[in-house]
Amino acid sequence: MATPPPADAFFDRCVDRFARIQDRIVEALEALDGEATFLRDDWTRDDEERRDDSPVLGGWGRTRVLEGGRVLEKAGVNLSCVHGRFTPEFAERLPGNGREFRASGVSLVLHPRNPHVPIVHMNYRRLSRGDTGWFGGGADLTPIYLDEQDATHFHDVHRAVCEAHPAVADYATFKQECDRYFHLPHRGEARGVGGIFFDYLRERPEECLAFVHDAGNAFLDAWLPIATRHLDRPYTDEERQWQLLRRGRYVEFNLVWDRGTQFGLRTGGRIESILMSLPGLASWRYDHRPAQGTREAALLDVLRSPREWASPRS
Amino acid sequence: MATPPPADAFFDRCVDRFARIQDRIVEALEALDGEATFLRDDWTRDDEERRDDSPVLGGWGRTRVLEGGRVLEKAGVNLSCVHGRFTPEFAERLPGNGREFRASGVSLVLHPRNPHVPIVHMNYRRLSRGDTGWFGGGADLTPIYLDEQDATHFHDVHRAVCEAHPAVADYATFKQECDRYFHLPHRGEARGVGGIFFDYLRERPEECLAFVHDAGNAFLDAWLPIATRHLDRPYTDEERQWQLLRRGRYVEFNLVWDRGTQFGLRTGGRIESILMSLPGLASWRYDHRPAQGTREAALLDVLRSPREWASPRS
Repeated sequence: MATPPPADAFFDRCVDRFARIQDRIVEALEALDGEATFLRDDWTRDDEERRDDSPVLGGWGRTRVLEGGRVLEKAGVNLSCVHGRFTPEFAERLPGNGREFRASGVSLVLHPRNPHVPIVHMNYRRLSRGDTGWFGGGADLTPIYLDEQDATHFHDVHRAVCEAHPAVADYATFKQECDRYFHLPHRGEARGVGGIFFDYLRERPEECLAFVHDAGNAFLDAWLPIATRHLDRPYTDEERQWQLLRRGRYVEFNLVWDRGTQFGLRTGGRIESILMSLPGLASWRYDHRPAQGTREAALLDVLRSPREWASPRS
Repeated sequence: MATPPPADAFFDRCVDRFARIQDRIVEALEALDGEATFLRDDWTRDDEERRDDSPVLGGWGRTRVLEGGRVLEKAGVNLSCVHGRFTPEFAERLPGNGREFRASGVSLVLHPRNPHVPIVHMNYRRLSRGDTGWFGGGADLTPIYLDEQDATHFHDVHRAVCEAHPAVADYATFKQECDRYFHLPHRGEARGVGGIFFDYLRERPEECLAFVHDAGNAFLDAWLPIATRHLDRPYTDEERQWQLLRRGRYVEFNLVWDRGTQFGLRTGGRIESILMSLPGLASWRYDHRPAQGTREAALLDVLRSPREWASPRS
């Protein structure tokens, strides 16, 4: 068994906050779905299960997965808390000193059944390396069909959270970072209508933690009203097919471009937790191009030219 | 328009052989399917469409795609012929001198509808850089359910082709290379039961061309009898679900590990031709583990411990 890292009271408080966010979200999503419940899969690992190239030496997690629900076709809400030693190559790219690290975070991806309900992703995490610690994360919305009111609501909620913590959070910057990160260069498309994204937040850790805590808790305010508005709308087989194609793009982003997924897959992370983000069903068709003037084409237009979504200031 | 590269009669002969292999395979697959026909999509590109980071300056291709067939749910048979300038980083890893290159190849991926018919991939290609040229490629079989007779037949056909060209081809080496390449490290699984794979074949180019030509033409001998044997077998919904999960693994391999796909996506290749290899429908489930003693578990056993498949010598 690997030696556990030294006590770090601030890190432990972060983990505790992430755990509460997870519990609250899981409870709310079960209430929303009304039928399916999350599978609770608690795991621990130590260095005996470790792959040679894995920097993770030990840790634990609480994976919560729902499959085949009425509202949620597939949903994962994950909490993890690991420690280890970075490879020299990886350590070079990160703040702080030494190779020992700890990482904890809460992350979720929801794949709703109804194509009128957008896919959504959220992740907030704390990393620490030697004496240096930082926060990262964000949330982004991936509609199958564009609904401007949804996009505006999602951004307004996240802007309000940023504005409540002006010393550490800046919505305009985080919105731009989100557009930059959740982007498929090979398609020339954004993953969706964005949200917020940030990394390496280091100064004023107490204020950062308060911000990340509020942002994590704001997830339900951001997404539940959108889901509720659309979840009982009827949909056609063509709309379902378009949803499966858009999920194919989601798979492309996660497997080809997402840094977290790439890092996890290449360094011995817990595969089932990492790939929890993949949809239950996805589709690819050769050179599919929606006809001009359709709602499918309207979505692509927006993905190719990201917009401002937050409500204008009066 | 980019200046076309200088004439290279040997390269042109390779392209001509690849084109004939493509035509022959497309014709045979249409006959096999009996209902659907391939969409013929001929394309050219020059440097005006080029992305800044793309090494490809120009070229042409013949993409052949079949979707929604009776036997083939999705099939792509592609011919391409491009030229360009390698980036310095990429050039460093390759034989030859200078940065100018030409590349041509024939490649296919077939996703049959019936879970008893294996997925199959084949690719043969010629690269040249300055005065140096080489061949690469191979073929591998990805069953959804293991059929030992199929695996043995596929390997026997490829062994016979190698043995007809002993000066340049070695089945035992190519079989091992195939197992090494078509492997998902994050799953600890082979993609399938393998076949042959090789790269940087340079010596005796005439003999190499004869080998690659015969290997490309052997594809039909290797796969058609397997497909024919199983394509009318009834299957259950559970078998279909398992097929979709195995296709999910195929997507993981292609998007995360396949060098050609990664290279193409990151350097401005023709996206629709590269991603032609992805299935029409694929599925992911959390921590899916087939029960011991099932045929699903038997497949996983073989994928975790690659075997010898060619018939024993008497």
